[in-house]
Amino acid sequence: MTVRIGVVGTGMIGQDHIRRITDVVTGAEVVAVTDVDIARAERVASGVGARALPTGQDVITDPLVDAVVVTSWGPTHAEYVLAAIAAGKHVFCEKPLATTAEDCLRIVEAEQAHGRRLVQVGFMRRYDQGYRAMKRVLDDGDLGAPLLMHCVHRNPTVPEAYHSEMATQDTAVHEIDTIRWLLADEIVSAQVLTPRRTTRRFEHLQDPQVMLFETASGVRADVEVFVNCQYGYDIQCETVGETGTVRLPDPADVWLRQSGRLSSGVLQDWKRRFAAAFDLEFVEWVAAVREGTLTGPGAWDGYAAAVVCDTTVEALHSGRAVEVRMKDRPAFYES
Amino acid sequence: MTVRIGVVGTGMIGQDHIRRITDVVTGAEVVAVTDVDIARAERVASGVGARALPTGQDVITDPLVDAVVVTSWGPTHAEYVLAAIAAGKHVFCEKPLATTAEDCLRIVEAEQAHGRRLVQVGFMRRYDQGYRAMKRVLDDGDLGAPLLMHCVHRNPTVPEAYHSEMATQDTAVHEIDTIRWLLADEIVSAQVLTPRRTTRRFEHLQDPQVMLFETASGVRADVEVFVNCQYGYDIQCETVGETGTVRLPDPADVWLRQSGRLSSGVLQDWKRRFAAAFDLEFVEWVAAVREGTLTGPGAWDGYAAAVVCDTTVEALHSGRAVEVRMKDRPAFYES
Amino acid sequence: MTVRIGVVGTGMIGQDHIRRITDVVTGAEVVAVTDVDIARAERVASGVGARALPTGQDVITDPLVDAVVVTSWGPTHAEYVLAAIAAGKHVFCEKPLATTAEDCLRIVEAEQAHGRRLVQVGFMRRYDQGYRAMKRVLDDGDLGAPLLMHCVHRNPTVPEAYHSEMATQDTAVHEIDTIRWLLADEIVSAQVLTPRRTTRRFEHLQDPQVMLFETASGVRADVEVFVNCQYGYDIQCETVGETGTVRLPDPADVWLRQSGRLSSGVLQDWKRRFAAAFDLEFVEWVAAVREGTLTGPGAWDGYAAAVVCDTTVEALHSGRAVEVRMKDRPAFYES
Amino acid sequence: MTVRIGVVGTGMIGQDHIRRITDVVTGAEVVAVTDVDIARAERVASGVGARALPTGQDVITDPLVDAVVVTSWGPTHAEYVLAAIAAGKHVFCEKPLATTAEDCLRIVEAEQAHGRRLVQVGFMRRYDQGYRAMKRVLDDGDLGAPLLMHCVHRNPTVPEAYHSEMATQDTAVHEIDTIRWLLADEIVSAQVLTPRRTTRRFEHLQDPQVMLFETASGVRADVEVFVNCQYGYDIQCETVGETGTVRLPDPADVWLRQSGRLSSGVLQDWKRRFAAAFDLEFVEWVAAVREGTLTGPGAWDGYAAAVVCDTTVEALHSGRAVEVRMKDRPAFYES
Ligand SMILES: [Mg+2]
Ligand SMILES: [Mg+2]
Ligand SMILES: [Mg+2]
Ligand SMILES: [Mg+2]
Repeated sequence: MTVRIGVVGTGMIGQDHIRRITDVVTGAEVVAVTDVDIARAERVASGVGARALPTGQDVITDPLVDAVVVTSWGPTHAEYVLAAIAAGKHVFCEKPLATTAEDCLRIVEAEQAHGRRLVQVGFMRRYDQGYRAMKRVLDDGDLGAPLLMHCVHRNPTVPEAYHSEMATQDTAVHEIDTIRWLLADEIVSAQVLTPRRTTRRFEHLQDPQVMLFETASGVRADVEVFVNCQYGYDIQCETVGETGTVRLPDPADVWLRQSGRLSSGVLQDWKRRFAAAFDLEFVEWVAAVREGTLTGPGAWDGYAAAVVCDTTVEALHSGRAVEVRMKDRPAFYES
Repeated sequence: MTVRIGVVGTGMIGQDHIRRITDVVTGAEVVAVTDVDIARAERVASGVGARALPTGQDVITDPLVDAVVVTSWGPTHAEYVLAAIAAGKHVFCEKPLATTAEDCLRIVEAEQAHGRRLVQVGFMRRYDQGYRAMKRVLDDGDLGAPLLMHCVHRNPTVPEAYHSEMATQDTAVHEIDTIRWLLADEIVSAQVLTPRRTTRRFEHLQDPQVMLFETASGVRADVEVFVNCQYGYDIQCETVGETGTVRLPDPADVWLRQSGRLSSGVLQDWKRRFAAAFDLEFVEWVAAVREGTLTGPGAWDGYAAAVVCDTTVEALHSGRAVEVRMKDRPAFYES
Repeated sequence: MTVRIGVVGTGMIGQDHIRRITDVVTGAEVVAVTDVDIARAERVASGVGARALPTGQDVITDPLVDAVVVTSWGPTHAEYVLAAIAAGKHVFCEKPLATTAEDCLRIVEAEQAHGRRLVQVGFMRRYDQGYRAMKRVLDDGDLGAPLLMHCVHRNPTVPEAYHSEMATQDTAVHEIDTIRWLLADEIVSAQVLTPRRTTRRFEHLQDPQVMLFETASGVRADVEVFVNCQYGYDIQCETVGETGTVRLPDPADVWLRQSGRLSSGVLQDWKRRFAAAFDLEFVEWVAAVREGTLTGPGAWDGYAAAVVCDTTVEALHSGRAVEVRMKDRPAFYES
Repeated sequence: MTVRIGVVGTGMIGQDHIRRITDVVTGAEVVAVTDVDIARAERVASGVGARALPTGQDVITDPLVDAVVVTSWGPTHAEYVLAAIAAGKHVFCEKPLATTAEDCLRIVEAEQAHGRRLVQVGFMRRYDQGYRAMKRVLDDGDLGAPLLMHCVHRNPTVPEAYHSEMATQDTAVHEIDTIRWLLADEIVSAQVLTPRRTTRRFEHLQDPQVMLFETASGVRADVEVFVNCQYGYDIQCETVGETGTVRLPDPADVWLRQSGRLSSGVLQDWKRRFAAAFDLEFVEWVAAVREGTLTGPGAWDGYAAAVVCDTTVEALHSGRAVEVRMKDRPAFYES
């Protein structure tokens, strides 16, 4: 059985997922798309033999659409996800699940009312082989209880529209989900340190930032976000347990010995760094949709990330540690 | 357009390729299979919705089959590949192309008579990202002319049926193709050193062996083959040019600091080491079949590997350096 | 000219320095020693052909003593250092320079009154080749202005007498000096995070701790102190500049491939990790004493470290970021 | 007791050893020197407070000289070493022990006639911490019996006077000693492969070369010598045992992440690569002289290296594997 997918939003990430569903994921095909730019939707649709429909509602309610991918502008996510739940269809929503914690909560409640899990959020790091290996080590318990995490998230550069709050909302949000998932623990407070700024980019931007999170069980995680580090896209993560540590490897590249240096390339963008993770994310999501057994990051994870992001932005503004105020997790979302 | 594939031989590697074509490669499906064990063929066929046919000829000449994958017993390869050429169909043949250089040559001649390339041989290392990065470095010319290669091919262990000649025919054959491809050069002589044998395995087996190859342009390549090294499956390759060297990375794995050691896992089998390469090999082959533009290792590469293997086995038996006696490469096979 | 050295305090570290001066450092010899345990002093003295004298004052004022090494109990440091200054003799004092910032300040003032530098403090990391290479990179300016530092200081275990304040006073004090020296910058505030404690050691001990420092120019440095990490003695340091980062290497050890792991040893104690640094520290100190040109960490560095340590302990107790209240650096101590 | 040393030959390496004995090695001093350039000898002598004597014989027989260091022109080594034995004095001779195997044998016989070991040869790799760690691993037996060794010896460049035979005599001679020492085994045959030459240096020079050695127990060792590799001074060594491998680490240097590369420096000369080994070599030699317990590489090792070098040069000229014709090792030299 092929899973017939409707895609709402055919911008860059939407097109990339359409290509992925078409060329990489077997057992799935894109049958309908839409976009605010309907001409773009039509171009993309014709490239993969899908239909371009006028609105997201049309795509979501189309009887030939089995499952929905939401890759539209962030502020529209909640509306489409809620519509998919109303239609009883699985929906994969790129981060953020919604732009406010309140809207995330509405989704959480709608999904519970529906009675089974339909929503997955695009936290693709859970599909990266390095992070998965780290999770296996932590779950095995060989390192004892986790005590600390050290994370680094660096980009070569960002455009001028990127503002200081996006260091949390667009960038560290991945670490926020990763920390919660790796530790199976909830974040309870956030603080943001604001070091001397790099002079290589915009005056308006606080870059780098150091975010400090505490979890319910007392683990302390620090996250360096430095989005104009110039030299490359670099993701690092080390978890310190009671008897040892586990650390992500650098991506493998050939080693050169030349001109007095031993060297290896650093990747320059997130697409290549997480290419295999994005592929696996959709392969596993399509399989889960087909079998009705979602296991990926869900609506509750989207809500929790939104609340922690709000708290972190508040911490950035206030300069102080801020407590995370989150609802209790319903039994429905116990894994 | 979906490429409809017939598979001749449904043993372990055949089943793995069938799974790959079905689950990993988009735009291709297995429609017919056969095997000497027809019951096995039927089980495999039913698992993917294909038909089980009585013979390889039936699969190859079936009008619903666009292209053929040969994964039968080695001695039958030549017959099926020649039949595919006779049927004017693309054929992917697992190594070896044929068990004798003479049979390889018959295939080379049949393909030339047909007039365009139809044959690809399963030298999957050409699809590994590490080797590809090495080839880019060498082709860029930054290291000057290549002068030396150092290769290592280690397996944790092999079964008792593995004999000393298989160190060349089954194991080093991959390095033989890799050396020819990376350097775009031909191997002209072979010598085999026979070190002290490991006591951990069979008395009948010369393990390890060191193979020494020379190319037409004078590059010297040494290949350590050690198929009972106990500790893991380990592929190493370093090419030395006039101004520097390039070396394959070890596969990336998380780093543990525990019990006084900094450590990372070593893979235990070739399937995992080259999983991505096998996938890409079929993705690119199917795309090439669809577009009629084969670029992978072809019949001539299969022939050349066979001749170099024969020479290497002769060198093992004689204890001396032996010259490779190969036909001149026809213009048809110039890349 | 041989530098004749008197040693005050012949405990473990004193004996190690005596051995170093005797066996490793050319151009220096130990001529007089003392200790609260006079029998121990006599045993040590006889081992190197030195005299055992009754008191530290006797050693310091002995006309045959050119320079003094203070390795006695911490609370006695200030008295002996002040006595050495009064005697106009060079004095190498193991950390801490004094146990209170006030006493450090008295030394600073006495040294200024004397009119030239006589005091060196045992911050041996400044003599480690890795840190020195990092300093060269930072001073070269290739990485732009430094923005962040990430430091890790782990011990396998500590004895029960070790209390939470010692994580700063005995352990992180090395990072405090290193940060100041590498950045040529002053620490202006400190905060301490108290993660979940390891269950492998004493209930009374907050272990690990994460210390957060800010410098005058806005660099943020985080220091993980984990003194019961079980797996080894592990010192890490990464400095992040505007265009790149520089990181200490792990100490070089042979690489084993065995039992499915690629691994290398982790050192188990600070003596071996910094053995070469300790040697170089004394080689350079003796040379500086001979030539009258002290360049190592001095009295002001000892004072600054003491003030930052006091601030960090206060931060540990209060749970808040605390501002460092330090005197202005006198012109005498400008480098 | 200070060991009073006479140095015969005050060229570059002689001066370096004189500096080492004076500044690094405690318990030893240079009291007499000589050189064919007597003015140079006088300059060097005055720098360390030693006497310049007219001839090597004068230095060796001087009653104030306890032990002799021979760093003169290679062809004069045998004469001075024999003179030292005749005088009953310990003698440290830079490699080669003598320029012919016959002269080495005369030394071996003279030393035996004297009745106890007096001669040490300057094979400093035995004092390198990496090689020592490798030897401990091999001696522990954890890897089972050694089967293979892979060695690399690269220099950035050599002067025009360097000729093809020096690849063995000056360069690979270190690996020849290392192989014998690490394996506690004797080399029984040699072969030399002559790859395509680098175009970056002299036409007269065969560079690189690959040397193939076999030991009495059947271990095969390959040694790449590439003395114009351009990029740096690079020493690699891997030993393959029945259950695993052990490999030298690259020298530790800080890691930079900059301009899209992760990189570390490669050393440019042997002096820095083996600085600590040269120091330790003299520290241990002086201690052994003082205690009369030589354990370093001796006259027999010098003889064996000479014979293997002769065999290797013969193999280079003949293009064939050549058997090593060596005397049986006398019981006197059993370790
Ligand atoms: Mg698809
Ligand atoms: Mg398929
Ligand atoms: Mg001394
Ligand atoms: Mg000396």
